[in-house]
Amino acid sequence: MTSWKELQVPQRILMGPGPANVPPQVLNAMTQCPIGHLDPAFLDVMNDVKAMLQAIFQTQNDRTLAVSGTGTAGMETCLGNVIEPGDEVIICVAGFFGDRMCAMAERMGAQVTRLDTEWGTAFEPEQVAAALKKVKRPKAVAIVHAETSTGVLQPLEDISRLAHEYGAFFLVDAVTSLGGVPVKVDAWGIDAIYSASQKCLGSPPGLAPMSVNDRVLKALFNRKRPVHSWYLDLSLVGQYWGTERIYHHTAPINAIYGLREALRLVLEEGLEARWARHLHHHKALVAGIEAMGLQMHAKAGYRLPMLNTVRVPNGIDEAAVRRRLLEDYSIEIAGGLGALRGKIWRIGLMGHSSNRRNVMLFLAAFEEILLDMGYRFDKGAGIEAAAAVYHAAR
Amino acid sequence: MTSWKELQVPQRILMGPGPANVPPQVLNAMTQCPIGHLDPAFLDVMNDVKAMLQAIFQTQNDRTLAVSGTGTAGMETCLGNVIEPGDEVIICVAGFFGDRMCAMAERMGAQVTRLDTEWGTAFEPEQVAAALKKVKRPKAVAIVHAETSTGVLQPLEDISRLAHEYGAFFLVDAVTSLGGVPVKVDAWGIDAIYSASQKCLGSPPGLAPMSVNDRVLKALFNRKRPVHSWYLDLSLVGQYWGTERIYHHTAPINAIYGLREALRLVLEEGLEARWARHLHHHKALVAGIEAMGLQMHAKAGYRLPMLNTVRVPNGIDEAAVRRRLLEDYSIEIAGGLGALRGKIWRIGLMGHSSNRRNVMLFLAAFEEILLDMGYRFDKGAGIEAAAAVYHAAR
Repeated sequence: MTSWKELQVPQRILMGPGPANVPPQVLNAMTQCPIGHLDPAFLDVMNDVKAMLQAIFQTQNDRTLAVSGTGTAGMETCLGNVIEPGDEVIICVAGFFGDRMCAMAERMGAQVTRLDTEWGTAFEPEQVAAALKKVKRPKAVAIVHAETSTGVLQPLEDISRLAHEYGAFFLVDAVTSLGGVPVKVDAWGIDAIYSASQKCLGSPPGLAPMSVNDRVLKALFNRKRPVHSWYLDLSLVGQYWGTERIYHHTAPINAIYGLREALRLVLEEGLEARWARHLHHHKALVAGIEAMGLQMHAKAGYRLPMLNTVRVPNGIDEAAVRRRLLEDYSIEIAGGLGALRGKIWRIGLMGHSSNRRNVMLFLAAFEEILLDMGYRFDKGAGIEAAAAVYHAAR
Repeated sequence: MTSWKELQVPQRILMGPGPANVPPQVLNAMTQCPIGHLDPAFLDVMNDVKAMLQAIFQTQNDRTLAVSGTGTAGMETCLGNVIEPGDEVIICVAGFFGDRMCAMAERMGAQVTRLDTEWGTAFEPEQVAAALKKVKRPKAVAIVHAETSTGVLQPLEDISRLAHEYGAFFLVDAVTSLGGVPVKVDAWGIDAIYSASQKCLGSPPGLAPMSVNDRVLKALFNRKRPVHSWYLDLSLVGQYWGTERIYHHTAPINAIYGLREALRLVLEEGLEARWARHLHHHKALVAGIEAMGLQMHAKAGYRLPMLNTVRVPNGIDEAAVRRRLLEDYSIEIAGGLGALRGKIWRIGLMGHSSNRRNVMLFLAAFEEILLDMGYRFDKGAGIEAAAAVYHAAR
């Protein structure tokens, strides 16, 4: 029998597309004693999580909860509780995660009308309007708010209005956006939305906050066929998160502790302040990147503050840069996914990771590595430009 | 905006059907820095978890991993990756969780032949043999090894042999058994098995260890239709846990840290020693319970060491007893589920919770409360009988 050593993981600065670093208070909360999933004290914790998620999603939806799985489970829960086999759905694909939505919806038996736009751009409402005109009975329009694969922020309000004009539900992936940019579920008429714990919300991965409104619930309870998945069926999960408190599965107790603390910290900081913080450090990073002569992949005005995509200059091995960042600085950033593989870097500034120290260290390390690899630019310009953004804000 | 307080949860002694208490080392491991799900250091952690699970499941199966969901997600993964719509499956129902398997399999479009036996008894191989004879093309026989709802241990070897004689896969729920009693996947010919992190393995809830053999994988890759769930599709999940390392979802990093430490502690204690420990404290508890004139619900010889079901005596309000245990002693035990609601208590001695201190404290508290509620028995007999078991073992 092999003898195993205790776990030792490196201290990373997480500047990829998530997970992000986590405040120590969140990790500490997770070390509290696990208690039963029907313990009155745990039901109080669930009620807190629900109320805090309502505040962060900016919704009154009673069915607001955390799915016991990762963001991908959230995606499947959201789609699966709306879609029945044969339903016509319109899915907007501007990147990797829109594509994933199509794969899931097709597996559920939906008739998917897939809209595509170039990876790195956002959809115009007209594109969606044209599709809605063509589809006979559109059950839903689904779209990703913040495409982690491209760094693009998708405006939602006009598309939401269009979806409702045609009687369709409006489904939103807010995995990367929630906690980092405004997400206004009720004001924007979002019918079903999901997110993930490990991005701008600041807790470890493993939970998918989500919210659906009463229209979705009504349709759910009038389905002809049950939801494809028993585990992700909101009519069952909802009886545990709701007042009935009927056992469905054993909640991931300690993960919920961590999420509760993370949400508490989000609300303590304040949503407006948190969005401003994400924007501020994004601006400093972009100033630095552009001063180095590099190009952002997403167009100005559509850039995600929490996930910055940078085009890899000719002649530079993007994977080698990432490797050196990891080995020499213990900094994680990511490369491109799918169509953008090898073409961009993805630099996250999410939640706890979105701070001045990370921006400045990253730019210093990035400059050092790129210079050493033969990329030519005005030495020191990146750091100087970012510093100027910080100085201007003093 | 409400101001939220930091999390404060009570210190509980968890003696219900799970979650159980968790060793402090496990909680500590969970506080290590989250790192990326494709970080080489995290892939090492995954490899450790896989190897340790292989040792604990006693299998060489390459596809041995932890599903990113609770035990219920493990059940759905196990059934869903074997069952295709129209498949004939035999499901043995001896309690709540066998019943749940039927609900899931039916939702997947299986033709379910449901075998029933009284809640509190185990299946005889003859019952399964008779069903196998009747079903035309049985794809699988599914059974719960340790029924948490009844406290009964189900012998598996004969049923496994029968299933294979008829060309069916043998599927096992080891949610409660793994880590507490022998589970020998390869020796017993189990084709697909799942468990949960929070019972005898000693980590918090949220992960479902599982293992499938190459026969199941071969069938999986030859399916006519994809697995019902994208999130739980082992052909995709397996590419992340396997050497391909293709991104499927963001693993619940810190939960995996905790599981790794819990598995390490299981192997440090040793499987045989751990099984013996569970049996030892079970014997002491049962001696105490019976000395109080109470009756175990499961027949001797079929009792689970980690989950003890005790019949509620006439005239006693079982919920009131549980409430007093919780309020006066911060001890959690559970009542009956489904057909056994109100009729039994379920007293867990799982993993870290299976120890002498818990047995003696529980009996002292139980005696005190039952005496006060008017149940008559030989005062002090429970503690004395349990102590005698411990003294005899010195």
